[in-house]
Amino acid sequence: MKGYGMFNVGNHGWLEKEKPTAGPLDAILRPIAVAPCSSDTHVMHGGAGPKENRILGHEAVAQVVEVGNLVRKFKAGDTVVVPCCTPDWDEVSLQKKGSNNAHDSELMKSFKLVSSMDGVFAEYFKINHADANLVLLPEGVSVDAALMSVDMMSTGFYGVEMADVQFGDTVVVFGIGPVGLMAVAGARLRGAGRIIAIGTRPNCVELAKEYGATDIVSYKEGDIVEQILAMEGKVDCVIIAGGNAGSMNQALSITKPNGTIANVNFYDATESFQIPVLLWGLGMSDIKIRGGFCPGGAYRIEKMLSLIKNDRVHPEKLLNYKFEGFDKIKDAFILMDEKPRDLIKPVVHINWD
Amino acid sequence: MKGYGMFNVGNHGWLEKEKPTAGPLDAILRPIAVAPCSSDTHVMHGGAGPKENRILGHEAVAQVVEVGNLVRKFKAGDTVVVPCCTPDWDEVSLQKKGSNNAHDSELMKSFKLVSSMDGVFAEYFKINHADANLVLLPEGVSVDAALMSVDMMSTGFYGVEMADVQFGDTVVVFGIGPVGLMAVAGARLRGAGRIIAIGTRPNCVELAKEYGATDIVSYKEGDIVEQILAMEGKVDCVIIAGGNAGSMNQALSITKPNGTIANVNFYDATESFQIPVLLWGLGMSDIKIRGGFCPGGAYRIEKMLSLIKNDRVHPEKLLNYKFEGFDKIKDAFILMDEKPRDLIKPVVHINWD
Amino acid sequence: MKGYGMFNVGNHGWLEKEKPTAGPLDAILRPIAVAPCSSDTHVMHGGAGPKENRILGHEAVAQVVEVGNLVRKFKAGDTVVVPCCTPDWDEVSLQKKGSNNAHDSELMKSFKLVSSMDGVFAEYFKINHADANLVLLPEGVSVDAALMSVDMMSTGFYGVEMADVQFGDTVVVFGIGPVGLMAVAGARLRGAGRIIAIGTRPNCVELAKEYGATDIVSYKEGDIVEQILAMEGKVDCVIIAGGNAGSMNQALSITKPNGTIANVNFYDATESFQIPVLLWGLGMSDIKIRGGFCPGGAYRIEKMLSLIKNDRVHPEKLLNYKFEGFDKIKDAFILMDEKPRDLIKPVVHINWD
Amino acid sequence: MKGYGMFNVGNHGWLEKEKPTAGPLDAILRPIAVAPCSSDTHVMHGGAGPKENRILGHEAVAQVVEVGNLVRKFKAGDTVVVPCCTPDWDEVSLQKKGSNNAHDSELMKSFKLVSSMDGVFAEYFKINHADANLVLLPEGVSVDAALMSVDMMSTGFYGVEMADVQFGDTVVVFGIGPVGLMAVAGARLRGAGRIIAIGTRPNCVELAKEYGATDIVSYKEGDIVEQILAMEGKVDCVIIAGGNAGSMNQALSITKPNGTIANVNFYDATESFQIPVLLWGLGMSDIKIRGGFCPGGAYRIEKMLSLIKNDRVHPEKLLNYKFEGFDKIKDAFILMDEKPRDLIKPVVHINWD
Repeated sequence: MKGYGMFNVGNHGWLEKEKPTAGPLDAILRPIAVAPCSSDTHVMHGGAGPKENRILGHEAVAQVVEVGNLVRKFKAGDTVVVPCCTPDWDEVSLQKKGSNNAHDSELMKSFKLVSSMDGVFAEYFKINHADANLVLLPEGVSVDAALMSVDMMSTGFYGVEMADVQFGDTVVVFGIGPVGLMAVAGARLRGAGRIIAIGTRPNCVELAKEYGATDIVSYKEGDIVEQILAMEGKVDCVIIAGGNAGSMNQALSITKPNGTIANVNFYDATESFQIPVLLWGLGMSDIKIRGGFCPGGAYRIEKMLSLIKNDRVHPEKLLNYKFEGFDKIKDAFILMDEKPRDLIKPVVHINWD
Repeated sequence: MKGYGMFNVGNHGWLEKEKPTAGPLDAILRPIAVAPCSSDTHVMHGGAGPKENRILGHEAVAQVVEVGNLVRKFKAGDTVVVPCCTPDWDEVSLQKKGSNNAHDSELMKSFKLVSSMDGVFAEYFKINHADANLVLLPEGVSVDAALMSVDMMSTGFYGVEMADVQFGDTVVVFGIGPVGLMAVAGARLRGAGRIIAIGTRPNCVELAKEYGATDIVSYKEGDIVEQILAMEGKVDCVIIAGGNAGSMNQALSITKPNGTIANVNFYDATESFQIPVLLWGLGMSDIKIRGGFCPGGAYRIEKMLSLIKNDRVHPEKLLNYKFEGFDKIKDAFILMDEKPRDLIKPVVHINWD
Repeated sequence: MKGYGMFNVGNHGWLEKEKPTAGPLDAILRPIAVAPCSSDTHVMHGGAGPKENRILGHEAVAQVVEVGNLVRKFKAGDTVVVPCCTPDWDEVSLQKKGSNNAHDSELMKSFKLVSSMDGVFAEYFKINHADANLVLLPEGVSVDAALMSVDMMSTGFYGVEMADVQFGDTVVVFGIGPVGLMAVAGARLRGAGRIIAIGTRPNCVELAKEYGATDIVSYKEGDIVEQILAMEGKVDCVIIAGGNAGSMNQALSITKPNGTIANVNFYDATESFQIPVLLWGLGMSDIKIRGGFCPGGAYRIEKMLSLIKNDRVHPEKLLNYKFEGFDKIKDAFILMDEKPRDLIKPVVHINWD
Repeated sequence: MKGYGMFNVGNHGWLEKEKPTAGPLDAILRPIAVAPCSSDTHVMHGGAGPKENRILGHEAVAQVVEVGNLVRKFKAGDTVVVPCCTPDWDEVSLQKKGSNNAHDSELMKSFKLVSSMDGVFAEYFKINHADANLVLLPEGVSVDAALMSVDMMSTGFYGVEMADVQFGDTVVVFGIGPVGLMAVAGARLRGAGRIIAIGTRPNCVELAKEYGATDIVSYKEGDIVEQILAMEGKVDCVIIAGGNAGSMNQALSITKPNGTIANVNFYDATESFQIPVLLWGLGMSDIKIRGGFCPGGAYRIEKMLSLIKNDRVHPEKLLNYKFEGFDKIKDAFILMDEKPRDLIKPVVHINWD
């Protein structure tokens, strides 16, 4: 079968691989919609270390083709939403109360579509622990909206959860790419009062406002920290969904004691935080710092889909480049790699008939 | 000065009392808008035990007339929002982490406008610990919306907080009087997916939908529990904001293990819960039960006002009976006591010029 | 093979059944130590409804005899500690953050050794999801201590966790049977200050003091509530590990606003709570009420065993009746059913050589 | 009156100042036991910026000499325990749920004995908000133990709370000075299993073991990180109570995903964290990072004293240098500044008769 991915670091194209086979707990799926993500191109460029002959892609809505003999809930023909993170639920570490399920056997190891399996840009792909990871596409939820729930929305909303947003809190969101935009939408849905989004791209600014941002701050207008302190003083919560290691310093500069900074940004492996201890009150500031990876599994995605179905949020608005046909995965991937200034998020719809 | 209240249990009317004087930490205020509450009429009928010669009322926006010599933040002429609960912040019990501030020296003792001081239906009234309890009316917030924040919204939203609503949860709200309606609005703002409101009055039903209810269940259509189980199965969160002691049994019947029931209903002192242990899984169900009183203090109300100012919620829509003039407090009070079927919440605006 | 259990409600004895077989994720075990529990005799008397031809028992340390072909971590010959609750980790409900794992598909359904499988009083028994449920007996942990971790300690300590004990809190524990004694030990280990245990049996009183109780209250000395209020006033946390539905009323009478009541008592199915709303502050008291079943799974038991291994607690002191030999399960079961006044907990050691 | 402190940065000695006077909410106290702290000498050397003519000291047990006219709970002659942090409880920020009270109007501003008032090394000193900050010395608690509760124990135990220690968790404590030792004791009291303490000084090592450390790791035996990974692998919780900015890197290297790092170390203002993002999983590790200042106020100290009174912890064992007489404050201060290798913590007892 065909799949789009990387031959090795820096080289991408169509790969020819064997169709995957289902273990007893697995499902074999055929994608009906996929979305390239900046982590796909990041991995292709070596961001996750050397990988060879690997199909990429981890955001998909798909049809079930075949299930393992222990799978009880799904059958061939079902249309399912596929979490980007698909934990092995037999891993004991996941039983820790309140833990994020992204790290089953170790750091980020639940992100199997990137860490240990071929991805979704393929004629067929495999999902482990199908009963505990897949979700039937609910009636009343569009494929596009569902597709945006599995990573963009789950990640952005996790930023909001980690930031511990309370009713009426002022929240700053660094970055208004697709994850930052979802963090804005999530902050409003979690009860934030003022939401200050940091970004400059016009269509993202517009969507940020539609999703609930009350204020936009741009580095073009001057120093970010000074602008925020001038307009609001220190804030309750900061969500970092863009920028670089220096964003943490900015975040520390604008957060109140007893406030929280939540990171969902994927820093470049070559970076270092360089933080004068004074920014963290010599270690005494009671500013909490959290950072984590997109939670997956069926329960998480069911909850995201419930928000969509009940008309609370419209993540499909992120999709501003649309492609039709399996072959167009290549174009969409290249688009994501080139990131034109007006790109928010591309989708490829696939009709297998 | 004049004030409206109770001569003794069951008898209400205009009282003549001395104008209150400010202790060092107090403020003396003059109401510019007040709202009678069912707890006022409840107290008048003896619901809080025997009381005599007591001015009632605990929801007000007001002007500062005079402050004690230790008050630093407020001065005569300021327009302030008055929390219905005004704790004595020197009480040590309030320092417990995560506790509700409604119980300073003991159960509900922070509710001083009812428990130990004259209320706001007066030409002048006193507020203790002014610096820590009062909030300047923010620009961009209407008097009506602010007035609805001090009890209705703070109470309804506290129900949502106690219910521990998480993104995408299904929430049932018992009762769509003003507090229940605010619980509906708060559940949406906290990230609920499906919100099922239980009630029958047409204008409340309409407002419940506007505030975010996706479904309405009425006892007129059959058994409440059966209807909810049929439409959804068991749910994540239940907020009781109306009904009677039997509502707890209904709530237990529809809540999942690991779900939460939150009560903000004021039960009649003569009632008893009669709960077969089976409804609570013989004590093993992991259904959490919480119930509490409206939180007050300045921080709480600032956060409520931030939501209003940032256009997240419109509590002023509760006010569907409007009166003008101090003298009309009597009519508004009688209206609340009679509770016509279309009443949601009355307001009295007072212009002292 | 032979197993001890119930023919039907009220009748117990040796049953002859087929040796269980391992599904792909299961393990087949042979017990080396078991402990009858009052829930076993309770079930025999019909406490869990009609059951027929059922082997009982859910507390065991055992040897692995055989594992399913998907089991990776265990092999024949391993000595393992068996949680009394063995969830099916593919159930999506378990993915809810912070939830108790006792309720996989529904209420208490993770308690498979009682709800849906034969128990451990058998020559062989089966455990589902072996990799995620079993724990190797750690070096430095005795079989007896490990045996007491799987239900008595996990349950008692869960009471402490639900009660949200904070440093220096005053904790009351109702009942000093084996679970109550573990709640006392757990409360001390969680940072309680004063611990008031309610009970009368002399050897339990002695052990309660050894485990950390600072005060003992007995109904023989007068009303429980009056005694506690006289010695301490209201308290922060109450753990109910004995008594009947009326214990909840006593608990409500002695708990502070913002305090917590945690129930780990198994009420009799015929009981009802009869609680005047006044005891719960008319619904406004902010006394939290929680109640749940023993958490299981490997992570939980690993943590219990870590406490034992590091010499923090000695649950084996509960075992004051000891039997040797598989055949003695009958005597131990009858002893538990008769509950002589000096019984805390019996153990049966089994040497298969 | 006389007081010991700093003339200016780097110069210390006896100062002559006016006896403080009590505002309406204040108390004037006379110390009966004080303990110099490394933060006192740190401030003297300029660690809190330029200060002149300032009496130092913030750990005291004292006698009430005079109270302001609004103080209700204390009177001249009372023996009281004085929290090192004495918030102004009218500050609205303190009403935030779950917040640490050390930061009333801004960062660490509740630490008034250092930030804005003269300290306790004086014939007389003042405490604000006496009713909400002071605690009567309870019967059954020694002056020495009480003295160690106000900063050393409250700080060390706060490290444990921030680290979110759960039953059976493995905890690493960096540093076994007095705060680190209290973190060890607190971790045991909060339910830790294995406790690995990092340090080398023989008497501290001995006391760490007595307080509950199961393992000691010394840099003299090799790399700290390697030693811990070799003996345990990654751990659940790390408490940093010593070291320098590089300790954070070590902590990140040994903490599991979903684990927590809690800092109670006072970093030197000239330091910077230099953290390769890889150590924090590129921002995705779900390792929580917290750091905060000693909580104060009466409730906190009451809880610490309850632990002491109920024989759960013996913080007085920290005091291994004892002085008698007000004049000896100088010697104790110089001792703390010189920090001989066997010093844990000095105390000065003062008998005013």
